[in-house]
Amino acid sequence: MYDRRKIKDIKTNLFHVPLRESLSDAKHGTHTFFELITVTVCLEDGSEGTGYTYTGGVGGRAIYDMVEYDLKPILIGKDGDKVEALWDEMNWKVHYVARGGIASFAISAVDIALWDIRCKNANLPLWKMVGGVNDSTKAYYGGIDLAFSQEKLLDNIKNQLAKGHTAVKIKLGKETLQEDIERVAAVRELLGPEKVFMVDANYSWSVEKAIKAVKALEPYDILWLEEPTIPCDFKGYARIADHSNIGIAMGENLHTIYEHRHAMEIGKVSFIQPDASNIGGITGWIKVAHMAEGFNIPVCTHGMQELHVSLLSGIPNAGYLEVHSFPIDEYTMRPLVLKNGRAISPDVSGTGVEFDWKKLSQYKIEM
Amino acid sequence: MYDRRKIKDIKTNLFHVPLRESLSDAKHGTHTFFELITVTVCLEDGSEGTGYTYTGGVGGRAIYDMVEYDLKPILIGKDGDKVEALWDEMNWKVHYVARGGIASFAISAVDIALWDIRCKNANLPLWKMVGGVNDSTKAYYGGIDLAFSQEKLLDNIKNQLAKGHTAVKIKLGKETLQEDIERVAAVRELLGPEKVFMVDANYSWSVEKAIKAVKALEPYDILWLEEPTIPCDFKGYARIADHSNIGIAMGENLHTIYEHRHAMEIGKVSFIQPDASNIGGITGWIKVAHMAEGFNIPVCTHGMQELHVSLLSGIPNAGYLEVHSFPIDEYTMRPLVLKNGRAISPDVSGTGVEFDWKKLSQYKIEM
Ligand SMILES: [Mg+2]
Ligand SMILES: [Mg+2]
Repeated sequence: MYDRRKIKDIKTNLFHVPLRESLSDAKHGTHTFFELITVTVCLEDGSEGTGYTYTGGVGGRAIYDMVEYDLKPILIGKDGDKVEALWDEMNWKVHYVARGGIASFAISAVDIALWDIRCKNANLPLWKMVGGVNDSTKAYYGGIDLAFSQEKLLDNIKNQLAKGHTAVKIKLGKETLQEDIERVAAVRELLGPEKVFMVDANYSWSVEKAIKAVKALEPYDILWLEEPTIPCDFKGYARIADHSNIGIAMGENLHTIYEHRHAMEIGKVSFIQPDASNIGGITGWIKVAHMAEGFNIPVCTHGMQELHVSLLSGIPNAGYLEVHSFPIDEYTMRPLVLKNGRAISPDVSGTGVEFDWKKLSQYKIEM
Repeated sequence: MYDRRKIKDIKTNLFHVPLRESLSDAKHGTHTFFELITVTVCLEDGSEGTGYTYTGGVGGRAIYDMVEYDLKPILIGKDGDKVEALWDEMNWKVHYVARGGIASFAISAVDIALWDIRCKNANLPLWKMVGGVNDSTKAYYGGIDLAFSQEKLLDNIKNQLAKGHTAVKIKLGKETLQEDIERVAAVRELLGPEKVFMVDANYSWSVEKAIKAVKALEPYDILWLEEPTIPCDFKGYARIADHSNIGIAMGENLHTIYEHRHAMEIGKVSFIQPDASNIGGITGWIKVAHMAEGFNIPVCTHGMQELHVSLLSGIPNAGYLEVHSFPIDEYTMRPLVLKNGRAISPDVSGTGVEFDWKKLSQYKIEM
């Protein structure tokens, strides 16, 4: 009877979706578009699920090819209900050549599709399927605003507060620390003492500069300092944490569960930020979330809010959902729903992320 | 005047090269072919250099795409003599999406091409260009022989000894440790007490099993135990090293300089094994070699012997060159030269790795 649950076909698409305006941070330069890679998995019995990953404009074709030429051949004919087994098999298949970067992006898109099928088969929404602790989660607006003038920075935040946000993150990493601190002071003044405020240096600093920065940031009641230095330097993170009474956060650049362990065990972070689009999908994300629970660390997320809302809602150690400036959700049938600073999980069976293919079609890259 | 040194064009090729026989290890299954990705960089003044990377049969198209669509666009028009600057720029360009796996393979192929140009421009062979400490280096035969019967295993080693090898590595990771130890005992008996003997478990063991294994291996005078457990578990490596008087080795699965640092600093390895095909080419390899010197650790290599011979020859902290079972050098104009257990560096300007394009052409994949 399980033959009907075998994977029959996998359809992969690459889109280049333009951004309304150019967005800049300290380390990735200027973004003018993002890449969206979608993967639709079809079972013999007609079940279908769609997953996806995204990039800042680099690597999309490599991800597409890894799905098509390395993963698809080992997936066709396999039992689509054995989600974790397939995750493991995909990881080891490409381990030598792609572990972490690219592999984790490609596997993410496939794994999310399998979870979409799993949820639909159980007739459950994702937030229940991953635990059902809650059906909404705390959210914050994450600006990619380093190139904004101070005036535009403040206007942008005012707009986001008007939309219902009660927590905000800005980018740091200007030419001088003095400039950064001036922006931080202005934003804290705008927010008042109650609203939650985070900052993100996108690993543009040396450890020494980061230690200076946490001292200078102290008066402004910052919840976390994100990626002060390069994500590979776990002992560097620990040196910063040892000097800081602001929590240190990282995760968007950690693409294996082991790197997340190192960040928590060696790097002494206070917030961990896995991204289901680059940690191997929902399966990888849940492993990190459970490990974080053991480390007594709340899980926050990076990007992909339309999916992460359900993941954070479902678990007990939820931190904050990032509402990222790449508006993937505008190309879905249900853009993110925000109420009193919380994001509400879609309550339909499946991941709740259904793409508006008609709207996307104009951005499709012919492969 | 430097305009003439600008990068004018980059040509990328993918080949699927069949192996004479199927080769198996404990974790990657059976190999029937390897992928070879070549990159030829042309400067405005007509200078040309060729680099390459290889895989065990997975990920070649993703690597090809990353060179063509992500790296080439930022390289065209750049000064081809600024090799380390270009290495840095390439790494940061693809960092978010591909750091380590795929990125390091793709960058390797480009970087080796730039070093080929650098050496030719200076009219120097690679072994002098990287330091000139020696023009030859200790070598060993690395078998991918886990599926061989004991008889075939011993015959194969006899053949390699006849070819001039004085050091040999075999694969471990059979069903039981007892089987592994029987093979080790038979090989040590064949080798006699003088010849150098290493073993490689291709990360198929738990830490607990590896600790048992080093105890059982002790009587056989093993130089190193390679990859006893998964390469991401640096503290696991340290636990094994703490129990072992056999040196622990790793490196073929470490694709950033930071991972190599972690292996040495946290993992307590005694031998580090960077592979210029997957650590970002010659530039990445040299960084690891210099770091290893600071850690008082000899550098050995993995695969790609026709290139690594020159790199190991050039540096002071050279360990052993692996003569790998993927015969890339058979598709070059100068297959590896072995004398009294040492490999001799090619003494021509450039990397000394010139492909036999005619011989390769039949294996070209149309992209
Ligand atoms: Mg960030
Ligand atoms: Mg090995």
